Amino acid sequence: MAGGDSGGGDVVFSRPFRAPGELENLDRVLRSDHSHGDGVFTASATARLREITGAGHVLLTTSCTHALEMASMLLDLGPGDEVVLPTFTFPSAATAIVTRGATPVFADIDPRTGNVDPESVAEAVTERTRAISVMHYGGVAADLDALEAIARPRGIPIIEDNAHGLGGVSGGRRLGTEGAFGAQSFHDTKNVHCGEGGALLINDERYVARAEIIREKGTDRSRFLRGAVDKYSWQDAGSSYLPSELNAAVLDAQLAAFDEIQRRRRAVWDAYAAGLADWAGEHGVDTMSAAPGLEHSAHLYYLLLPEHEDQQALIAHLKARGVRAAFHYIPLDSAPAGLRYGRRVRPLDRAARFHDRLVRLPLWAGMTDAEVERVLDGVRSFRP
Amino acid sequence: MAGGDSGGGDVVFSRPFRAPGELENLDRVLRSDHSHGDGVFTASATARLREITGAGHVLLTTSCTHALEMASMLLDLGPGDEVVLPTFTFPSAATAIVTRGATPVFADIDPRTGNVDPESVAEAVTERTRAISVMHYGGVAADLDALEAIARPRGIPIIEDNAHGLGGVSGGRRLGTEGAFGAQSFHDTKNVHCGEGGALLINDERYVARAEIIREKGTDRSRFLRGAVDKYSWQDAGSSYLPSELNAAVLDAQLAAFDEIQRRRRAVWDAYAAGLADWAGEHGVDTMSAAPGLEHSAHLYYLLLPEHEDQQALIAHLKARGVRAAFHYIPLDSAPAGLRYGRRVRPLDRAARFHDRLVRLPLWAGMTDAEVERVLDGVRSFRP
Ligand SMILES: Cc1ncc(COP(=O)(O)O)c(/C=N/[C@@H]2[C@H](O)[C@@H](O)[C@@H](OP(=O)(O)OP(=O)(O)OC[C@H]3O[C@@H](n4cc(C)c(=O)[nH]c4=O)C[C@@H]3O)O[C@@H]2C)c1O
Ligand SMILES: Cc1ncc(COP(=O)(O)O)c(/C=N/[C@@H]2[C@H](O)[C@@H](O)[C@@H](OP(=O)(O)OP(=O)(O)OC[C@H]3O[C@@H](n4cc(C)c(=O)[nH]c4=O)C[C@@H]3O)O[C@@H]2C)c1O
Repeated sequence: MAGGDSGGGDVVFSRPFRAPGELENLDRVLRSDHSHGDGVFTASATARLREITGAGHVLLTTSCTHALEMASMLLDLGPGDEVVLPTFTFPSAATAIVTRGATPVFADIDPRTGNVDPESVAEAVTERTRAISVMHYGGVAADLDALEAIARPRGIPIIEDNAHGLGGVSGGRRLGTEGAFGAQSFHDTKNVHCGEGGALLINDERYVARAEIIREKGTDRSRFLRGAVDKYSWQDAGSSYLPSELNAAVLDAQLAAFDEIQRRRRAVWDAYAAGLADWAGEHGVDTMSAAPGLEHSAHLYYLLLPEHEDQQALIAHLKARGVRAAFHYIPLDSAPAGLRYGRRVRPLDRAARFHDRLVRLPLWAGMTDAEVERVLDGVRSFRP
Repeated sequence: MAGGDSGGGDVVFSRPFRAPGELENLDRVLRSDHSHGDGVFTASATARLREITGAGHVLLTTSCTHALEMASMLLDLGPGDEVVLPTFTFPSAATAIVTRGATPVFADIDPRTGNVDPESVAEAVTERTRAISVMHYGGVAADLDALEAIARPRGIPIIEDNAHGLGGVSGGRRLGTEGAFGAQSFHDTKNVHCGEGGALLINDERYVARAEIIREKGTDRSRFLRGAVDKYSWQDAGSSYLPSELNAAVLDAQLAAFDEIQRRRRAVWDAYAAGLADWAGEHGVDTMSAAPGLEHSAHLYYLLLPEHEDQQALIAHLKARGVRAAFHYIPLDSAPAGLRYGRRVRPLDRAARFHDRLVRLPLWAGMTDAEVERVLDGVRSFRP
């Protein structure tokens, strides 16, 4: 967080970071006569992402939603196939399954983290399970060891929805690189952004060649551009998942500022943790935390209020003080499309209760000390 | 086309137009703290597109490929369903079918236009046909009357792939607005561009509400943003088809310059038509033309050489003179994925021959008189 005054107006929930060099990069794209996908900024941003994540294969995509769709295509998901995923996540994790005609099977969460509960996953797995999709909520790693113990003996690949978790670490391993696939988001609510964008990390060699074709409208255009074939043509299923160089140019500037972004976000996170511990303890409020050995990504900070009424009251209390807080996600199993397309083994009470109690506080890299103080004062002046 | 010298270097095949105000618009996006989808530039570009096309409902998308996918989702295409489409088109028209698990059925073309031949379509239609997909090659309208005569009695919707045809008119009707859906491309090889981008024109009210949900990751977020619901949740299948405001900002500037772009492109097209008529007549070369009542979009200009060897020789002859010409598309029915996923009633000889004879000349809005002359001299110095 930065020093100085908050100025007037509300403390917004989220505000995209502005990295040095964004406009200069965009100017270069316009002058270069190459603003479609896979130009110099895509190459540079991809290299930076490889560096940050340590992943061997990184493909920029038009969104995290599309990275998840690519994983579904690479796994050849189809009607009759099932994918187990947490009910507490963003709808894209489920649409990526449903658009292939496959069935999402919802699992409950661990109430300490909001992450999928391996025991609930074990209950949901059947002979039809073709993948386990996991989301690292707030960049706190899900229990990958326990999930791998379920998945590996059955030969089921794990998909990591790492939209929140760029930079997160679990027992020395970087998030997004443990499953067969890791999906990143660069939506402008995320730590690092380019308006709309994403990336697929591929951690299993077998999928690399086909991924390139699927991403390029089902053609071997990538091979053509490398000079390996003298014309390109339709090879496979696919879509158009190349972000334009406009998006890549902004992403490249953002990734260059990644350490700075993370430092600022962590300062806000730490200020919340330090400033709310006593208040939370006194009022039976649970706070976000990361278990030992886990390094979270400072993507978000949340409180779990004692009851649903407290959640609603705190959001209203903060709003009256010009502080915007939020309560998502809405569990997918209870949403209209979840009921229609999905399946669950039993009522997923822990996710429902997590959602009922959750309050997410504003957290972004450009927050001033004064803004952080306003949030802290707002929360601490509330009695659950 | 503009006056002045061509400078050194090759005459490239295509170069994106640079519209006034692009960088200023991008600067505004970065300052606005809203660079994800559906901000002010999306609204403005959408309004301009409605004006240019006359379509009642326009949704910007991340690409034409994705607009075609949206049409497939809105038609609920699935395994067992068939869609008839020309074999002579870009692979995206087929991937949009195949990603739904449906079957592309390829039809032959009319050799005078490269557009799908209604008789071949009639041959390909079965009880399983759920849509007819048509592409207006070079923005010269396909025979929509004949296609509607096949489609309407059977209740089959028409999808217009109008990637080439923004601004094209057929018998007073603007391309992209006759079928149930029109799909536009703003890839930077197109008349109007934003790096990567597209739009879906919806010409049948029934699809509008659901299209909004499919485009927004299967959620009712659009309703939420209008204040019609107090939170949004997972409603339906869907994907993420919102272009970022970065792309919309460039598109808005381009659309503002649409008349200028078209004027310049038409000048190049007219110069080719006038400058090559005699040479073509002498050497048995067919040239691109538009039938009376049709206004093409000046997207491309092509020649059909007498034989395949002439095609190859002309491309090489031009290349030696620093002029880049091209020969796509490669018929889909003969491509690896066409053989695997598709079906055809008979060998599609006319498309194969069209592809074998085709030479596309450089055509872009920024071409100088000198560059056009170099192309004309290059062609006219060739003897088929
Ligand atoms: C009707 C239709 N419907 C839908 C969509 C989807 O739109 P979205 O992108 O918005 O989703 C499109 C999009 N197509 C565009 C261009 O039309 C197309 O030209 C090409 O652009 P490229 O930059 O690859 O190629 P180029 O600069 O035009 O030529 C460069 C060399 O490439 C060789 N080549 C070319 C082709 C095409 C091919 O098949 N095989 C092949 O060996 C020939 C040359 O030497 O690809 C674009 C995406 C479309 O046209
Ligand atoms: C794990 C995971 N996996 C995959 C992806 C796909 O990524 P791509 O986009 O790259 O494809 C995502 C992406 N999600 C992000 C954000 O996480 C998310 O916050 C939201 O941003 P918004 O701007 O809509 O909302 P906001 O500003 O965070 O809140 C504003 C108000 O919206 C209300 N709201 C909010 C939600 C979310 C919801 O369900 N229901 C709901 O009523 C609450 C507030 O009052 O949507 C984004 C796309 C993801 O998180």
